[in-house]
Amino acid sequence: MTGGGAPRVALGLVGAGQVGRAFLGQILAQREALAATGRMSLEVVAVARSRQMVLTKGTDGDATGALDLDLELDLDALAQHVRAQAAAMGGIAVLVDSTASASLPDAYAAWLESGIHIITPNKQAGAGPLERWDAIQDAAQRGGTRFRGEATVGAGLPVLSTLRSLRETGDEILSIEGVLSGSLAYLLDAWSRGEAFSEGLRKAAALGYLEPDPREDLSGRDVVRKMVILARGAGHRLEASAATVQGLVPDILTTGSVEDFWQHMDVLDAGVEQILTGVREGSASVDRCVIRFVGSLSRDGTVAVGPRALPLSHPFAGLSGTGNAIAFTTRRYNETPLMIQGPGAGPDVTASGMFSDLLEVVAAARTS
Amino acid sequence: MTGGGAPRVALGLVGAGQVGRAFLGQILAQREALAATGRMSLEVVAVARSRQMVLTKGTDGDATGALDLDLELDLDALAQHVRAQAAAMGGIAVLVDSTASASLPDAYAAWLESGIHIITPNKQAGAGPLERWDAIQDAAQRGGTRFRGEATVGAGLPVLSTLRSLRETGDEILSIEGVLSGSLAYLLDAWSRGEAFSEGLRKAAALGYLEPDPREDLSGRDVVRKMVILARGAGHRLEASAATVQGLVPDILTTGSVEDFWQHMDVLDAGVEQILTGVREGSASVDRCVIRFVGSLSRDGTVAVGPRALPLSHPFAGLSGTGNAIAFTTRRYNETPLMIQGPGAGPDVTASGMFSDLLEVVAAARTS
Repeated sequence: MTGGGAPRVALGLVGAGQVGRAFLGQILAQREALAATGRMSLEVVAVARSRQMVLTKGTDGDATGALDLDLELDLDALAQHVRAQAAAMGGIAVLVDSTASASLPDAYAAWLESGIHIITPNKQAGAGPLERWDAIQDAAQRGGTRFRGEATVGAGLPVLSTLRSLRETGDEILSIEGVLSGSLAYLLDAWSRGEAFSEGLRKAAALGYLEPDPREDLSGRDVVRKMVILARGAGHRLEASAATVQGLVPDILTTGSVEDFWQHMDVLDAGVEQILTGVREGSASVDRCVIRFVGSLSRDGTVAVGPRALPLSHPFAGLSGTGNAIAFTTRRYNETPLMIQGPGAGPDVTASGMFSDLLEVVAAARTS
Repeated sequence: MTGGGAPRVALGLVGAGQVGRAFLGQILAQREALAATGRMSLEVVAVARSRQMVLTKGTDGDATGALDLDLELDLDALAQHVRAQAAAMGGIAVLVDSTASASLPDAYAAWLESGIHIITPNKQAGAGPLERWDAIQDAAQRGGTRFRGEATVGAGLPVLSTLRSLRETGDEILSIEGVLSGSLAYLLDAWSRGEAFSEGLRKAAALGYLEPDPREDLSGRDVVRKMVILARGAGHRLEASAATVQGLVPDILTTGSVEDFWQHMDVLDAGVEQILTGVREGSASVDRCVIRFVGSLSRDGTVAVGPRALPLSHPFAGLSGTGNAIAFTTRRYNETPLMIQGPGAGPDVTASGMFSDLLEVVAAARTS
């Protein structure tokens, strides 16, 4: 199967955890359909996980096509291989970073400049230092390549693509509000139904909703990262450190081990109760409001993250469970925002966000 | 300004009503930014309205670039001119049908096959006869062109692009539900607050929410069209006549003039009361439900349109005003749907849906 006139794509995947494997499963399942409809003729030419990698000539080859199996991981060699395979097939080089590595994004700029498109659910580049972010944007510009991270905000929900489309069609972003943490949504939901906060936390942990250290969730740090990505997508040059955050971890519990933390649920309950009661009492209508953990971007580029008391008429008031929701208020969507909501976490929907990036990158790439 | 390496686009616009003019305003306002970012170098080479048209060499030219002003409308000559201008600039030909014409779509297939991309907010092609729809798809396939109608459902909301992305990434559509009529949403909202239905209808008319003949809205025909477009987008071969519709026009008022209709508000009120009371009493929880006018597509391709009693926990229960909402339940978005909501009508947001189509069409067009 050659895919006829479909653009040829050499794809390398770094990181084969749950999300990476789900992505690989999805693109391989659609491989024939993508070729048949002329979208792309796809070859997965490299897969790396932990400290090893496999380099091949493509998906068709399986064992026979494999050049080198189980090499020691060498990211530069992997990138070079993807680029060489793309060149050999007269196609497009795409590298997918499916890790959560903070350092891997250091290599993005060089890859982008060398002609490799990058797709990632890794929030480190989008929310990391502005200097690196600028270098990534500049390198993509020079290399004629794209850096895409749809899955970094809302997983598979079409959030960043919608933001891009709003701006490219000349709309003006006035504000963005988001419920961007499924775990915090779950915890506040349980608390508002009268459960002790620690009780909800234990259930959330049992359901696999939490990071190994629950304070990663409770601190709001992950929401800050997503809001920084949205703010940059809206055209603001923002460092994560500039965001105002009110987390749900009492000061006294911010240090110490995870085990220590779990042994002081009484302190957590008292602290959270105090924070949330304060939020509720600061609201205009104490009885007729709901508390949501909200990230917001103002028109001036300010980002604030924390628990908010919202009137029942607010579009986020009706949310339940672990769903995400993002509301764009713009010049065109002024009185009522454009809102996108749904599950915002999980391997399958995260992978589908990465897949939609792949479709866009390939459609837009000019193979000359 | 040449736009450097940006793909060149010759665009013709048929229909210069509110939506057409809003679209023209938006693309001309973004013209320099689109060229600067390499997205496209855009020339509007033809504009037709009512019975006249203007053919030019492009936007820069203004009066001097005009070849022929105020010609008698000849759509084939217009299409030929757009194609010739695109060829002369080595670019892409795009024709935008901003009319509500039922017959203009008859010409789409020939245009698409001749190399002209088509973008339209006109629902007639997407919801019209399957035979014509098939011819349009086939012609686009043969011509290597695209037919796009994002603005036909939900105006500027990213509904059809999301549906396409879900399917292209290999997700499976299990059902689609939509509140797709802003006017019916407004009317049911007013009625549920205890107003006589006719009172809400008068207010809606005064606010400009209704078609000249309000029965166009009340019949649900427009919602059927949108659901047929969604159903075809989900891969079902459906004729509009196959949809089950329960409208809000009592039988006795379906014929007769608009003036007659407005003189029988007592009949309307009694008839609608009967319909909606029936819907409410047919629901499992009479007291704890809200009535919404819903279009639904089942997995087997069946479309049903009409008033529904929804439990308060339904994602559409919290909607208010004239907003649209579309919920996709898929293999990946199974327990909780992917939902998009916001204003779904109005010239500005409709034009921005057409503009996002233009960006996609140009990005994906291979100029060879």
